[in-house]
Amino acid sequence: MSFAPDQRIPVRVLGATGAVGQRFVSLLADHPWFELRAVAASERSAGKRYGDAVRWALPGSPPSAIADLVVETVAAPSPEMLVFSALGSDIAGDIESAHARAGALVVTNASSHRMDADVPLIVPEVNPDHLGMLSKGGGILANPNCSTIGLVLALAPLHCAFVVEKLHVVTMQALSGAGMVGVGADLAMDNVVPYIPSEEEKLALEPAKILGSLVGSVIEPADITVSAQCNRVAVSDGHTECVSLSLGRDVTADEIREAWSSFRGLPQELGLPSAPVHPILVHDALDAPQPVLHRDLEGGMACSVGRLAPCPVLGWRFTCLSHNTLRGAAGGALLAAELAVARGLVS
Amino acid sequence: MSFAPDQRIPVRVLGATGAVGQRFVSLLADHPWFELRAVAASERSAGKRYGDAVRWALPGSPPSAIADLVVETVAAPSPEMLVFSALGSDIAGDIESAHARAGALVVTNASSHRMDADVPLIVPEVNPDHLGMLSKGGGILANPNCSTIGLVLALAPLHCAFVVEKLHVVTMQALSGAGMVGVGADLAMDNVVPYIPSEEEKLALEPAKILGSLVGSVIEPADITVSAQCNRVAVSDGHTECVSLSLGRDVTADEIREAWSSFRGLPQELGLPSAPVHPILVHDALDAPQPVLHRDLEGGMACSVGRLAPCPVLGWRFTCLSHNTLRGAAGGALLAAELAVARGLVS
Amino acid sequence: MSFAPDQRIPVRVLGATGAVGQRFVSLLADHPWFELRAVAASERSAGKRYGDAVRWALPGSPPSAIADLVVETVAAPSPEMLVFSALGSDIAGDIESAHARAGALVVTNASSHRMDADVPLIVPEVNPDHLGMLSKGGGILANPNCSTIGLVLALAPLHCAFVVEKLHVVTMQALSGAGMVGVGADLAMDNVVPYIPSEEEKLALEPAKILGSLVGSVIEPADITVSAQCNRVAVSDGHTECVSLSLGRDVTADEIREAWSSFRGLPQELGLPSAPVHPILVHDALDAPQPVLHRDLEGGMACSVGRLAPCPVLGWRFTCLSHNTLRGAAGGALLAAELAVARGLVS
Amino acid sequence: MSFAPDQRIPVRVLGATGAVGQRFVSLLADHPWFELRAVAASERSAGKRYGDAVRWALPGSPPSAIADLVVETVAAPSPEMLVFSALGSDIAGDIESAHARAGALVVTNASSHRMDADVPLIVPEVNPDHLGMLSKGGGILANPNCSTIGLVLALAPLHCAFVVEKLHVVTMQALSGAGMVGVGADLAMDNVVPYIPSEEEKLALEPAKILGSLVGSVIEPADITVSAQCNRVAVSDGHTECVSLSLGRDVTADEIREAWSSFRGLPQELGLPSAPVHPILVHDALDAPQPVLHRDLEGGMACSVGRLAPCPVLGWRFTCLSHNTLRGAAGGALLAAELAVARGLVS
Repeated sequence: MSFAPDQRIPVRVLGATGAVGQRFVSLLADHPWFELRAVAASERSAGKRYGDAVRWALPGSPPSAIADLVVETVAAPSPEMLVFSALGSDIAGDIESAHARAGALVVTNASSHRMDADVPLIVPEVNPDHLGMLSKGGGILANPNCSTIGLVLALAPLHCAFVVEKLHVVTMQALSGAGMVGVGADLAMDNVVPYIPSEEEKLALEPAKILGSLVGSVIEPADITVSAQCNRVAVSDGHTECVSLSLGRDVTADEIREAWSSFRGLPQELGLPSAPVHPILVHDALDAPQPVLHRDLEGGMACSVGRLAPCPVLGWRFTCLSHNTLRGAAGGALLAAELAVARGLVS
Repeated sequence: MSFAPDQRIPVRVLGATGAVGQRFVSLLADHPWFELRAVAASERSAGKRYGDAVRWALPGSPPSAIADLVVETVAAPSPEMLVFSALGSDIAGDIESAHARAGALVVTNASSHRMDADVPLIVPEVNPDHLGMLSKGGGILANPNCSTIGLVLALAPLHCAFVVEKLHVVTMQALSGAGMVGVGADLAMDNVVPYIPSEEEKLALEPAKILGSLVGSVIEPADITVSAQCNRVAVSDGHTECVSLSLGRDVTADEIREAWSSFRGLPQELGLPSAPVHPILVHDALDAPQPVLHRDLEGGMACSVGRLAPCPVLGWRFTCLSHNTLRGAAGGALLAAELAVARGLVS
Repeated sequence: MSFAPDQRIPVRVLGATGAVGQRFVSLLADHPWFELRAVAASERSAGKRYGDAVRWALPGSPPSAIADLVVETVAAPSPEMLVFSALGSDIAGDIESAHARAGALVVTNASSHRMDADVPLIVPEVNPDHLGMLSKGGGILANPNCSTIGLVLALAPLHCAFVVEKLHVVTMQALSGAGMVGVGADLAMDNVVPYIPSEEEKLALEPAKILGSLVGSVIEPADITVSAQCNRVAVSDGHTECVSLSLGRDVTADEIREAWSSFRGLPQELGLPSAPVHPILVHDALDAPQPVLHRDLEGGMACSVGRLAPCPVLGWRFTCLSHNTLRGAAGGALLAAELAVARGLVS
Repeated sequence: MSFAPDQRIPVRVLGATGAVGQRFVSLLADHPWFELRAVAASERSAGKRYGDAVRWALPGSPPSAIADLVVETVAAPSPEMLVFSALGSDIAGDIESAHARAGALVVTNASSHRMDADVPLIVPEVNPDHLGMLSKGGGILANPNCSTIGLVLALAPLHCAFVVEKLHVVTMQALSGAGMVGVGADLAMDNVVPYIPSEEEKLALEPAKILGSLVGSVIEPADITVSAQCNRVAVSDGHTECVSLSLGRDVTADEIREAWSSFRGLPQELGLPSAPVHPILVHDALDAPQPVLHRDLEGGMACSVGRLAPCPVLGWRFTCLSHNTLRGAAGGALLAAELAVARGLVS
């Protein structure tokens, strides 16, 4: 039942010169469905050639076709009906709303609208039905926080099969994406910073919305008690999370492993271009998963889990890892947009 | 009531050429009570001048008086009645027992004897009464695991005042000490390794013994349920631990802070040379404690705590940090030896 | 004039469980010409399934077909006529000679035989004619040192066009490959180690042999005065080298850039499977090349050069970067083997 | 002939909230001669309590007496006759000139005035006589660039005894101080950045001024040809430099070592509070100097040299290391100020 649109869909990237914006540009360069027609950024970059305005921080150079685009301002109206937003959360709110009101589907990586009642927060394998909140003619589709996405992928099959009741998570997050907010590169070395602004709050709220139920046009959040402690570590890419949880019934390790291994979602069924074959990779090695070894598997779109063991305090524990700027940001947003197209939300 | 011995006490270091052994040598070089008389190591080093046998990996050079000592074998009997052991756990067991039988007090950093019924596991501020298991004429005094020591310092005042019932800890441990077992330096970079051999087991058992009660000559372990997940991160020195716990009664954040701030132990009362003035440093900054900023405070002998907050799952949570090769290894062992001397266990 | 052999050539890897050995296994898994038939390692691993004997340290898992091979000892005779050696230089010498005498072409990454009079030291784009020293029926083909290969790629077009007379090079080498010899992972962090055993000597000798002329069956080394200072830095993969040199005649920056950009060798002409399209990538950005951005370009098989500028002391200076375990080790050896096959040296 | 002023001298720090400014505050907190009376910063911080305005990034907390000072603006006139400037070079020029015209001696770490004809560029052990350019009643005394200072300390005794003619230097510089300009913390990890804005130019010019001669009131620069290549590496503190040079006459390694070992300057003679006992530390170990082992020796105020060897291209080569924010910034400026006070330049 593989799906493909009739013709390539023109798209625009807001905040195209930043770190996440560059990932969008890079992933869109050869996308089979989407054609990157416009890049927009702040006034400082507007009017310049993209290749001159961007300080490219990914391997290689900006894709040549896109390097020659002239950067537009983020305030300019979008003739494209599909808009990716990599704007900072300080300015994203109003700009995204304006584009949505003007008829575009805005797929955003910013946090501004994530908890809005009329905005679905989508992990495509987990809650594709929440797209039911949207209709053709414009709206906002939010990508969850980078540390939420990998976690929810690992949780979804367990919640579905056994019900997650309590959740304790300690993150060890990479420096990419938001960067080491408020500290310089010299303090990122040889260090752990036990604080990321607003991160623990996001992790406490977002999973319940994603794992919740769409009743009519309202999401009833899942009833999960969450405690999150978030740390920055000296890793370039890849968020590692130590998870402990209590489940609604007694299960065996094999049942958990089986739930993970067999997990597939609508993106896999539909054969969406950015969908990993295996959304969850189960590792048996004692020292897995590790960022350098496993973050790039499945094109950076899978969640790796390992170290499953009974937790004397809560029931079960494990470690999960996902790529924070691929699955956790631009790649996840792209997959969500593909799903929205497949569901007919973009004309 | 400051204590000092009548004359300097001759001491020996077993395993003096290794990483922890070097820390012992460094700390003993100018010690007011102890005089480092003999250094012992494997057959490979025995017979050589210490300065030639050691690959010194601390700032500066080996102390000159000690550099000229001839390295003895670890099997040689010790005329000194106080012996520090930095032996690897693979060989420490028998050698330490032999020295103890021959009449020496062996203060060891190895794990071999830690859980032995007749060996006290000492954090000097926490369970000095456990020294009651030993008597003059030889014995083994074990220093806990590096990740246990900082944790127990933070727990002790809470357990004493409010009773710790359940404990969940996720560690982010430095590379020094045991090193990155089984992986090379290239895999230590830009990485988190979610496994340290036997570490989770040690953290699950040692706190209960240390916080236990000496009844007659037997230790009854404290009744604490522990879950530990241990990770290596790219930090040179300093173990950071995310702790969540449930307490025996309702408390306020201020009560917890007050318990920590006011905590003093026998080492402080006795004015032992290696005792920190403040065993626990309470930080209010949102991003504290951090290894680079706080591991060296109080000469690396304090435990820094911060990020105290309610834990929706277990009750309370916080982050603690301590220097793993100072307080967590050689420095902690030295302080324990000072306490043993003050208690009259070394003739 | 693209070349391909009639049928797949069976090959063996010596030292298959080590870091470079794993790279060989990984690159050979899907090689269009070669079929990995046998893996050999030390007695400790011999007799075990490869997948059980190896501690896999590359992304993902060992290729499944190879994981099921039973590890042989390195002393066992090789029915395969093409043997890749990733043995340590401490044991490689005799074992490689034995395989060569028995009729195999041994393509080695070890340093043991590099300066032997009857062993060509090959950078396939640079001195393919040196293969004329070998004939069918067995021999040794040496891959240069990891820091030599990238350097010689950058030098070759300059030496060919303008003659390199004096060469000053300071390296900043990655931790992978030989690892941080003699220091632990904790000393690799936040550090520069200004010494790599024997490395400066290798860099002083190998370029002159590679850039030398084959006269009869003897190589006359190029007349280049070399000074090399070698450092380890906290980088996982990718050797960066600051090069200054004096040339035999006055040239312009454009002439140098043009010599680099237009450089192609026999591997490119023959379309060898491991050959990069562009062996040298010239960067104009002020802050290029950098390991994280450029080491993986062209499959890790190119040398990136940048920061070309006049050197007030020697004439010209630039910075070059190449991937030390791909182009600088297993990948380079594979390309050399492909060239040897194309030249008819493997029956 | 140890010198001390009659009474403590009131001082002011401009740019007190930044990285170098914090170092000044930290070093001045317990200074025996100076009393930190005023801290000044940008408008954003002015009017706030220093302890609230600063994001303290050194171990521990801001000194308590200073934490209670109210931050002034950098434009405010200074009643103190001794002013330390840690201003950014973008704004330092005019502000420092204004303070100097108003009668203060401004000891600055900024680059703005370093090459001014009427500003001495001081390394106190090397060119104390250049202070002769200044007189009581205000002026600017410039501290050289962080990578210049360590280098010139190592060069001075060689230049004095043997004359340095050509100099080739490749730096591997730490992230502290200016930070990783233009790249984020994620690109500082696992990387070498072969570019630091304006750094190579500074290294090419400053040594000749410092090693030059004061003739009347004019400095005649030394006649040294310099080539510098500057790199950022993943080190928190400590600049490592690979140096090659040609000397005016033939010398032996022992002569060079002796010149270094015996080197003392006026700060040592005068017993200035911040003067290291040994300004140059000569290391014989094959792998010395290293940032983690040697940057903090002598309170971070010495230059460590090692790896002395003949250079086939230029004559001699060695590696030197110095602490970039102590000797290379605030500590060096403090020592220069002490010298200026001892020379009677501050009333």
